[in-house]
Amino acid sequence: MARWEPEPRERLLRAALELFEEQGYDSTTVVQIATRAGLTKSTFFRHYPDKREVLFAGEDLLCRLTADGIAAAEEAATPLEAVVAALQAAAEAFVEGRRDYGPRLIAVIAGNRELRERSAMKEAAITAAMAEALQKRGVAERTALIAAELGGLAMHRAYALWASPANRSEFAELAQQELAELRSAAADL
Amino acid sequence: MARWEPEPRERLLRAALELFEEQGYDSTTVVQIATRAGLTKSTFFRHYPDKREVLFAGEDLLCRLTADGIAAAEEAATPLEAVVAALQAAAEAFVEGRRDYGPRLIAVIAGNRELRERSAMKEAAITAAMAEALQKRGVAERTALIAAELGGLAMHRAYALWASPANRSEFAELAQQELAELRSAAADL
Repeated sequence: MARWEPEPRERLLRAALELFEEQGYDSTTVVQIATRAGLTKSTFFRHYPDKREVLFAGEDLLCRLTADGIAAAEEAATPLEAVVAALQAAAEAFVEGRRDYGPRLIAVIAGNRELRERSAMKEAAITAAMAEALQKRGVAERTALIAAELGGLAMHRAYALWASPANRSEFAELAQQELAELRSAAADL
Repeated sequence: MARWEPEPRERLLRAALELFEEQGYDSTTVVQIATRAGLTKSTFFRHYPDKREVLFAGEDLLCRLTADGIAAAEEAATPLEAVVAALQAAAEAFVEGRRDYGPRLIAVIAGNRELRERSAMKEAAITAAMAEALQKRGVAERTALIAAELGGLAMHRAYALWASPANRSEFAELAQQELAELRSAAADL
């Protein structure tokens, strides 16, 4: 049997978001989330270690996608071209069905200090994953760090655009455009 | 009466660090920290909201110093020159008597996930303070974000060097040199 079942994870995320919105993050328990999702507490814990991680399950996926994207970039790619490959690979995590969660996730996280801290850690982890993957390609440490920071900024900004209700562009397109604009803004340093 | 008394704050920091090292962060209580510092619990809470914030009291100071440094930079300064001014102003927080806490703080934070998250948030807050101060000078948003990220990287790396036992250089010098090297590394993007 496959241990990874997308359906329960999705149901738990939907239930958690609803409850966090209705009654606040602090007042919501794992049992309430499981019940709302029509699942048991033990099913919850098969998928997430605690209620907070329901909101940050994308971290591991994004670290893996971006690192793999960089590793798979053409040998002749510049560091920033490898970061473009990372952002294109990351788009797999930003599929159409998830777009509507975007503004809701952003609002729930913004409203709670613990979640904002966790979110800062998530962004740092993704940036670190990109920097490490760049160094594995032989990119010098500082150049890798800067390229990864630009990639992180592009991802953050593209996500906010992608998740905004009026936007219908693809994440990959938004991220690539954002990275290009950041690159050109860096000329004014 | 001045509400800010450096002496008790310093004693509480020293006591907290000792206890976190001896018995772990999770097992240490506010009462234990206050007792070890020869102070009362209510004195503790006059200085810090909880045991965790003892380790991150520098955040507000660093946000203020860097933002003020940028605001006070010469009118003709480029964004990166303004960031140099921010790092020089930040050096006020890295005085000689604090250097020995450096490796101990780094080790305690590295050993606890909650503290690592808080630390990521601190770095994000300082970077955001610099970006905001740059925008107030009229620097375009994306350029301000990149300059602030470079400043944050330089501060992080200079701090690690400054706090390493073998190092006797001044923080300001290390940070300025690091920023210059990051700038030159950015040419290879």
